[in-house]
This record gives sequence, structure tokens and C-alpha cells, in this order.
Amino acid sequence: MKKIPNHLAEAIHWLSEFGKEVGGGVTRPLYSRPWKEAQEALKFWMEQLGFHPYYDPIGNLFGRLSSLEKDAPVILVGSHVDTVKSGGKYDGAYGIIAGILALKYLKQKYGTPKRHIEVVSLCEEEGSRFPLTCSGSGMITGAYTIESFSGLKGFDGVTFEDAMMEAGLGPFNQPYTVRGDIHTFIELHIEQGPVLEKLQKSIGIVETIVGQKRFRVTVEGESNHAGTTLMKWRKDAVRGAVSMIDLLYSFVKKYDEHLVTTVGQLFVEPNVPNVIAGRVVFSVDARHPSESILHSFCQQFLDGFNQIAKKMGLTVYSEQCHEVHPVHMDSELQSIVKEICTRNHIPFYRMNSGAGHDAQLFAPFCPTVLFFVPSRDGISHSPLENTSDQDLEIGFHVLTQVLHYLAYE
Amino acid sequence: MKKIPNHLAEAIHWLSEFGKEVGGGVTRPLYSRPWKEAQEALKFWMEQLGFHPYYDPIGNLFGRLSSLEKDAPVILVGSHVDTVKSGGKYDGAYGIIAGILALKYLKQKYGTPKRHIEVVSLCEEEGSRFPLTCSGSGMITGAYTIESFSGLKGFDGVTFEDAMMEAGLGPFNQPYTVRGDIHTFIELHIEQGPVLEKLQKSIGIVETIVGQKRFRVTVEGESNHAGTTLMKWRKDAVRGAVSMIDLLYSFVKKYDEHLVTTVGQLFVEPNVPNVIAGRVVFSVDARHPSESILHSFCQQFLDGFNQIAKKMGLTVYSEQCHEVHPVHMDSELQSIVKEICTRNHIPFYRMNSGAGHDAQLFAPFCPTVLFFVPSRDGISHSPLENTSDQDLEIGFHVLTQVLHYLAYE
Repeated sequence: MKKIPNHLAEAIHWLSEFGKEVGGGVTRPLYSRPWKEAQEALKFWMEQLGFHPYYDPIGNLFGRLSSLEKDAPVILVGSHVDTVKSGGKYDGAYGIIAGILALKYLKQKYGTPKRHIEVVSLCEEEGSRFPLTCSGSGMITGAYTIESFSGLKGFDGVTFEDAMMEAGLGPFNQPYTVRGDIHTFIELHIEQGPVLEKLQKSIGIVETIVGQKRFRVTVEGESNHAGTTLMKWRKDAVRGAVSMIDLLYSFVKKYDEHLVTTVGQLFVEPNVPNVIAGRVVFSVDARHPSESILHSFCQQFLDGFNQIAKKMGLTVYSEQCHEVHPVHMDSELQSIVKEICTRNHIPFYRMNSGAGHDAQLFAPFCPTVLFFVPSRDGISHSPLENTSDQDLEIGFHVLTQVLHYLAYE
Repeated sequence: MKKIPNHLAEAIHWLSEFGKEVGGGVTRPLYSRPWKEAQEALKFWMEQLGFHPYYDPIGNLFGRLSSLEKDAPVILVGSHVDTVKSGGKYDGAYGIIAGILALKYLKQKYGTPKRHIEVVSLCEEEGSRFPLTCSGSGMITGAYTIESFSGLKGFDGVTFEDAMMEAGLGPFNQPYTVRGDIHTFIELHIEQGPVLEKLQKSIGIVETIVGQKRFRVTVEGESNHAGTTLMKWRKDAVRGAVSMIDLLYSFVKKYDEHLVTTVGQLFVEPNVPNVIAGRVVFSVDARHPSESILHSFCQQFLDGFNQIAKKMGLTVYSEQCHEVHPVHMDSELQSIVKEICTRNHIPFYRMNSGAGHDAQLFAPFCPTVLFFVPSRDGISHSPLENTSDQDLEIGFHVLTQVLHYLAYE
């Protein structure tokens, strides 16, 4: 732990050692031992750099490069330290490390800033241990209170509070004050999609983090013998589900290319080759940057599902189980990033984010900007996750200039 | 066990006590304890009726009403004693019990027959313990030899030979001689489908047990993030599979109503709502009484699958994993059943069997006939399986007359 990295790619590799698996993946769920070790290593590094690190009661780790003006606003930069199971080494980590190295560079080159700059290693974003995402940014911005986690159980059976205590944090009854000094939040992240690579752009400036609706659709028919039941007498739940999903995909074509929909999960009952299925349950995930377009798309396919069920003598229940509203990034901050790219001849692309991010929680709280570097083959949440050293450097370069503009000018 | 039933419905209920579950289902897999107890109970009953019961080395139980003429041919009647997991009390059992009671009736009413009549409680048909069906009829007819079962492991991990030994049978090295004296096989069974009930017929005379082909279809695409991958860049295995299954069902309409096809089993990988599926595996079961029609249907949908895969940039492998050729029942025996029904004003229907039966194994071996009584709501392989007492009696009545015609006239 005492060995401290100097360069970006080196530092990303160094942090990935905490929670590294034999297969190359990184598993660092909230409050786990590798999570704690990673935060402690970052804390030690920040200390060495003179950033006076501290934890908030939920476990977000902050380091600070202070202005001489005590009441100056805070420019916050960072991302999340937790990972999914067998994730990659760039998701979240890159934004923290680039932030620390940016503060180091700015301090060395320009000295004390006019505004405070803080770097944050957010405790949790992925929702891979507890059934709640962005608990770190949610606490900072007041979207959650500590009561939001009360009684919450992890997929490993441990309660949120017990896990917190095991990580040397907690208990729940500590006061948590929502900060009034944060003026701006800046998140640098890998794209986790193939757009930048396909378009050969180095920076993706996010306009909107898309809205998302998720449904659990249950189709009920009649389970029967696959040999003795004539087709005309069947109420085949697979046949119904297949028609519905086919319709869903055909409807997408009527919308612009920002609409994406996915049936990623499907269960058949009893799921035996020679028995007509009595029940199918499948998920529908739909995303679009416009709330009204997303709403109209969902209404259209849900109506379509009902019509198919009626025609086939089946029953269908569609239950919405998840909703995220579209969130727009600050347009002035987007322009700043854009100008920096233009000035430096860095090819950029204005885009939406189809994935969720901590920036989503900050955007209603303070001016927020999110920008991406390319992901090789668009792969993320996988040990194969990769971004070239050159792209990492370009993102870092843009970040330092954004911070310089906001904190020194 | 000493309590012996006198009437048909009573006897069916009595036999269902062996392997009866709390929920009302019957579970009596080959060589299990309830299986052994059921065979022993039937043996005791046959003994009481003077039918000199005996087992063959595989565990089929025979009882015999002998002719005075030692070399007379044997008319064999019966069905299987094993059940699926949580099956009903009529499937198989009805054919055995009707057979025993028919022999009892014929002996009492007409005395010694001109030809031997044997009733058989076949050891296994369902394939619910070992991955092989009709082992009882398969041994009698020489379709299988004892080597067919060598090394075979049950779904409970027990080998066929060990299970056999536990049931007091075996070992494998006993000689098994295929019998040359069986002249006719008669099987009375519940329909396990809704045809007779829907058409209000009491007896279904089977012309053909349909041919069956089963495929395991694997569709491979690319697993990806459901939010960040535009629709046009996806290789979604669910989307491909859904198109294929929709096509399969649309092709059926081009054929006559005897063609049935079922996708009863489907697995998605990784099966997570927010991940585009990289792989889907599904089953296709297709049945028709004509081998050539079945073949052409399968060729058509397999070609269609390949075209869809090509169009969508997916890979598809279709592997045939099961095949049963159509088997025709003896036309002379069908005519005998038909005449008996006509003479007795019993409404009958000439039909195909979409389900497999022991008669399938006997048909290539000796003149064979299979006839059905109605199943309430077409339900079978379920505790809800039911046939009215009246329909059971009608089937029994026809059976005794068929046996009388064949063995006494």
C-alpha cells in the first residue's frame, strides 16, 4: 500500500489490485474488505499529496485543495470506488484517480486555487451489494437520508448497518448534514458503450442521462401436453410472449435511434421441451432522453401486449418495477468542456448516456457535467473493459483544464 | 395390501395409493419403493385370481389365463405401472387394471380360452427416472437388450443396475429371451388430450402414433449493455430467438391440423434485465403422423432459422436430439375395435396419438392396437388427471369384447 503511483495508467492498475480476482476481474462491493482497503489506500495517497482526506459518515472519501478564501465555493470532482461483480478496472476508478492526479498537477503548477477543489471517492454507485444505487452521491445531495438504508439487506444477507460497522463506519445515528458549499460536480468516466470508438472521437460530452423504465411482464396461458393438444386449442404462453417481444422490437423502428429497448430476462414455466408453457415472465427495459417519448413508447407496447393477449386467449400483467427520469447536464459546463476540446483539437461528440451515473444525483443539486473517454469495443462491467493509455491521458488533460478554468480563473 | 379391489374405479384408486403424495399426485418411478410395492400388490392380486404371475428379468409383471392348447399364441394386454413425477392415477394404471379385470371376467363367464391371454404390468414407459423410455416394452420386443441400460444413470444418480438390484431384480447377466409366442398386443389408455371430450366420443381408435422430432436450437449473439448500445449495433440473441419462434409458429398454419409444434423450453444468458442476451437456447418439438410432412416442416423452419440468423448477424446451431418415427397400428385390429363399438352403439373416433405409448414398441413386433378413453379437460401428467367412471367402464367393456373375440372365437 505504501507504494504510490505517479502516472494515470499505473494508478488505475494499482487501485485495481484491491479486489482483483484470478480471472482478472475486480470485485469491490460497498463496505467489503477490498472496498475498505481501496479507500484507505486512496486516503493514504491523498495524505501524501497534502489533500487532508476525510470520510463522511456514509463512507465517501474526500480530499481537498483549499483556497485561501474560506467561504469560497467547492468544485467537486470524482466518481465511485465500488465495482460490480467481476467488473473492470476503469469503471468509477478512472474518475477518482484522474481527479487526484488533476489536483496534484494543479497544485504543483498553479499553487493555491481561488475556489476550493475537492476530489471524492464515492462509496457506492453500482447497487451490486444492496438493492439501491448511488448511495454515496445520494447522501451528499440529500436524495437519500440515512433512513433510506435502514433495514436494507444485502444479497449476502448482511444488513446495510452491519456492513457499514464492519467497514469501520457508522453507526446510523451519526448526523449527516447535506452540504451547502458544493458549487459544481464534474465526473469523468469511461463510456461503457461503443459510440466514441465507432465515431473515432476522444471525448463524449453528455447532454442527458437517459430516462429508463423497466417492466416485469407476466403472460399466463394453459400448460398442456405438447403432443396431444391441437394448435387451435392451445393457450401457449411462449407463443404469446414471443409475439409480444417481436412487436416490441418492431415498434422501436418508429422512433429515433436514441430509443433503446431490451428483453434481457425471460423465464418459462414449467420449461420442459414436451410441455406447452403455462407461464412466461420477461423483463422490458426501455430508455430515451425524452420523458414524453419514452412514455409514449411504453404506452404503445403495453397496449400492443394487451391486444395480443386478448387475441390469443392469454392473460398479461405488466408491472413497472423501476423508473429513472431523464437528467440534463448543465449546458454552461458542457460549453466549457466543448471549448477546451476545440481549443486543443480534441475530437469530441455530444451524446446521451444510456447508463446511469453519480452525475444523475448531482444534476438536480448543483451544476453538473459528465464526460466520457472511449471504451474498447464498448465493453464494460467485464474484466475485458479497456481504454487506451492515450485516451485516458486525453480525458485527464481535459479534466485538469476544466478544473483550472473553474477554480483558478 | 391384502385388501383386493373388485371394481374398476376402486382398483384404480387402490393402485394409486402406491406412491401417492400429499398433494394428490402419484410418483412411482421405475424400481423405486412405491413401484416395487405396486408390482407386488398387482402380483398378489393376480395370484388370488389364479393367473400365476411372474416377473421377467427386467421387472415386467405378467399374469396368465392359459388355453388348454400349450402351443397356442398369446394375446397380450396391458400398459405401464410407472408414473411421471406427481402424475395422475389413470395414466398406465388403467390399462393394467382393465386388463386384469377383463381376464377375471372372461374366466368367470367363458372359462378357458382357445388362445392364451396374458396381462402385463410393464415396468417402465415414462422415462422419468432414467433417460430412456419404454424399457419394459423395449425388452419384450427386442428393441432393447439389457446392454441398452448398462452404465445408464438415473436423475437421482443411481445406476440402472443398482436400482434394479434394490428392487430385488437383476443382476444384468441373467439371460433375456425375446418371446416368439406373442401374437397380439392390446393397449387401453387414457387419451391425455382433449379430442374425445371435445367431440363427445367415448372411444378413440388410434391409427398412427405420430412421428416426433426434437431439436435444441442455440442462438448466439453478443452480450452488451442495455443502455449504451444503439439498436442498430446490437446482436441480441433474444431478438433472434423470438423471430425464429414466431416464424416457426407461422409456418404451422401452412399444414393440416395434425401438425403440432412446441417451444416448451428456453434459456437466456446471462438472463439479466439490463444486459442484452448473448445466447439463447430453446427446444423445438414437432409431431405429425406422416414422416415426410414432418421432415419437410422441420426442413422449412430450420432454413428459416438460418436466414434470420444471417440477417441479424447471429449464429444459430440446430441439433436434433430426439426422433421417433410414426408407427401405424394394425388395421385389422382397428376394424375389430370399430365393429365392437358400432355394434354396442358406442361413439368412437379414429384418431392419431400425439403422445408416445408402449404400443409404439409392440407395433413393429406383432399386430398391435391402441385405444383411448377421454381425459377430462385433456389433462394428464398431473394430479388433476381424470376420466369419468362411465368412460372407464365403456373402455373396459370394449376391451373384454376385443379379448373375447381374439381369444375365444
